[in-house]
Amino acid sequence: MSHSVNTDLVQLCREMGRRAKTAAQLLAIATTDTKNRWLRAVAEAITNNSNIILEANQRDLRAAQSKLNAASIDRLQLTPARLQSAVNGLNQVAALPDPVGEVRESFIRPNGLRVERIGVPLGVVFFIYESRPNVTIDAAALCVKSGNAVILRGGSEALHTNIALCNVIADELESTGLPRDAIQLITTPNRELIGHFLHEPQLIDLVIPRGGKSLIEFIQSEAKMPVLKHYDGNCHIYVDRSADFDIAERIIVNAKCQRPGVCNAAESLLVHAEIAHAFLPRLSQLLQNHGVELRGCELTRYHLTDAKTATEDDYRTEYLDLIISIKVVKNLDDAVSHINTYGSHHTDAIITTDIAAAQTFIQRVDSAAVMVNASTRFHDGFELGLGAEIGISTDKFHARGPCGLRELTTYKYVVMGEGQVRS
Amino acid sequence: MSHSVNTDLVQLCREMGRRAKTAAQLLAIATTDTKNRWLRAVAEAITNNSNIILEANQRDLRAAQSKLNAASIDRLQLTPARLQSAVNGLNQVAALPDPVGEVRESFIRPNGLRVERIGVPLGVVFFIYESRPNVTIDAAALCVKSGNAVILRGGSEALHTNIALCNVIADELESTGLPRDAIQLITTPNRELIGHFLHEPQLIDLVIPRGGKSLIEFIQSEAKMPVLKHYDGNCHIYVDRSADFDIAERIIVNAKCQRPGVCNAAESLLVHAEIAHAFLPRLSQLLQNHGVELRGCELTRYHLTDAKTATEDDYRTEYLDLIISIKVVKNLDDAVSHINTYGSHHTDAIITTDIAAAQTFIQRVDSAAVMVNASTRFHDGFELGLGAEIGISTDKFHARGPCGLRELTTYKYVVMGEGQVRS
Repeated sequence: MSHSVNTDLVQLCREMGRRAKTAAQLLAIATTDTKNRWLRAVAEAITNNSNIILEANQRDLRAAQSKLNAASIDRLQLTPARLQSAVNGLNQVAALPDPVGEVRESFIRPNGLRVERIGVPLGVVFFIYESRPNVTIDAAALCVKSGNAVILRGGSEALHTNIALCNVIADELESTGLPRDAIQLITTPNRELIGHFLHEPQLIDLVIPRGGKSLIEFIQSEAKMPVLKHYDGNCHIYVDRSADFDIAERIIVNAKCQRPGVCNAAESLLVHAEIAHAFLPRLSQLLQNHGVELRGCELTRYHLTDAKTATEDDYRTEYLDLIISIKVVKNLDDAVSHINTYGSHHTDAIITTDIAAAQTFIQRVDSAAVMVNASTRFHDGFELGLGAEIGISTDKFHARGPCGLRELTTYKYVVMGEGQVRS
Repeated sequence: MSHSVNTDLVQLCREMGRRAKTAAQLLAIATTDTKNRWLRAVAEAITNNSNIILEANQRDLRAAQSKLNAASIDRLQLTPARLQSAVNGLNQVAALPDPVGEVRESFIRPNGLRVERIGVPLGVVFFIYESRPNVTIDAAALCVKSGNAVILRGGSEALHTNIALCNVIADELESTGLPRDAIQLITTPNRELIGHFLHEPQLIDLVIPRGGKSLIEFIQSEAKMPVLKHYDGNCHIYVDRSADFDIAERIIVNAKCQRPGVCNAAESLLVHAEIAHAFLPRLSQLLQNHGVELRGCELTRYHLTDAKTATEDDYRTEYLDLIISIKVVKNLDDAVSHINTYGSHHTDAIITTDIAAAQTFIQRVDSAAVMVNASTRFHDGFELGLGAEIGISTDKFHARGPCGLRELTTYKYVVMGEGQVRS
């Protein structure tokens, strides 16, 4: 098989990568004060330049009218309120502790050596994402605060908005004394360029793809460096035999209906067989009042004759919509086994008053977050108290769950002696 | 390009993988007591079965006589003393804290949610290593204690020894009530089988290759799952202008000569130009007394006329032998830049009395361990107080430096509520 390789693109990739590496070396030793000053300066500059940014966004929106559906256009749109929310985000990141230089462990060895484990940046992050332009601001803020240079590749439909945003962001890098190349935006629409970056492990330390499954699978198969994946959230709620029905209802409605289009919304409901007859009819009424379509197993449909039939595929599906799959399970073991088989290891909840059931569920469900009597919607950096995040990792390696500032760093060991040698 | 695939090997791989996955689920919920009981039982069983194990080792040694060099034969050999040391290692791992179930962070949110970050196993580890059979015992101990199933692929020259060891280890798994498939040894010499495992990310959660550079590069390019790499250690010692010469000499001799064949031995010496004339001659005498061959830059050879000339390649080489490359550098910046360019990001040391120089070196040298006035030989799990290790990671992602029990785990978030929903 022979490929024709566009050497201009290879050169562009290496040039951007080398500039990012140089910027990363400077960023790694930037003080927390400087980085926070930059974050606050960007917040102010976005407010001052909101007209330019919103005009650029209008241009993207006009071009998108004929090409994108309403949901995509909504994601693409920046409003003054959305810009303000991004500005608030910048100030929040400024207020978070700096993970660089953080002493994570420290002890004195019997021979007097002082050993410290200290947070350091990863280096250069390659961030690939889709339409929402406010993600550009979040990613830039998190990468720079964690001492990493970032190469951004946003959706082509948001290009003018992203250029306007990155100009403001980069101007403030210069005015704060940080390297302008700390944040570089790919403006070439050619997708081939992404592939070239994925083949340069010497220049890129980490790839973070955020988008559809096919994008993530492509990145995973091509990348020669680590990938931090944010796959889908096929999240479950298991209603145990001992559940408090009021709590169960409140949580199910919240997890399914409060914002159905996000990864931590519930997609599937498991109900213990002993309570199915008592719980399902009242729940069904409530969910239907919220406009939720029910798709159930045979036993579910015995109790809820108007529910549709759930297929195997339904149990594997992240609907991101007002639809829920339902299965009546024999017991807790069946629930755990269903979740570990059909789920996506993102977020799964148990509703129970039984402490042993809760413990078993926590221990056996192999997911990034396990909830007991709480909505799956809480699996989020802010809600868990971890601060802003660049995504929720469904990987196990390096980082699991919300990826914030600390997850964008690694560490080094520092050993201080007075001439110690090994015997 | 067409491959002929041996379907028997694919089936063997999947069968072993599935059995490992099942065992991993059981191991993940095994108590610390059970795992420690197994470790101590293996220690006892190895002692009781040392004759069988040493006989199997003799068989491997006889077959190796005609094929391997003396150093390789030495690595392959088990002696009663080496077995005893492995037995001690097992008891030490039993004494280490269990990383599974460890609460790594815990806080109460303003809405009353209790959030915990808890250590959990990775799942199934595929460990590929070369001749030393005591590594079989270490790897089995570390993987099982951290709740992971492991598939072991040792060097074919150690096969009989490894079979004897794994029989003892697996018998004790059964007698302790742990799944026998927690530890599986690949006995097929066919290398193609390794490739099949590397293509099964659903069955293998992590690959750890330990061996030569070409092995590691092959694994890295083929693996569809995370790889924890243990590359070479091209370790530097930089003697600063302000160095205490006695400390410098003691550390250089220790780092170069105490055990030249290991990854944290020093390979390269950088000397500040202002002290080169005073320091190099006395050091050279000392190193030559220890049988060390010196290879230096032009300035080095100006001070040490009998040193050989160092080439570019010398500065990139991990000798693992009584040879050292020497370079006279203009200043600290030059030293840091040489280390970050030619080094392998493993272990680098500065000898200095100047606190500012130490701080700059710590901050700018991009290595897993940075030593100040201490021998590079301390970069080791035991010496740093972290306990036994399965290797020293030269990667930045997930784990850097010594990989012990904690580095063989990941975490999950556990959120306990009383019916909280998101508003």
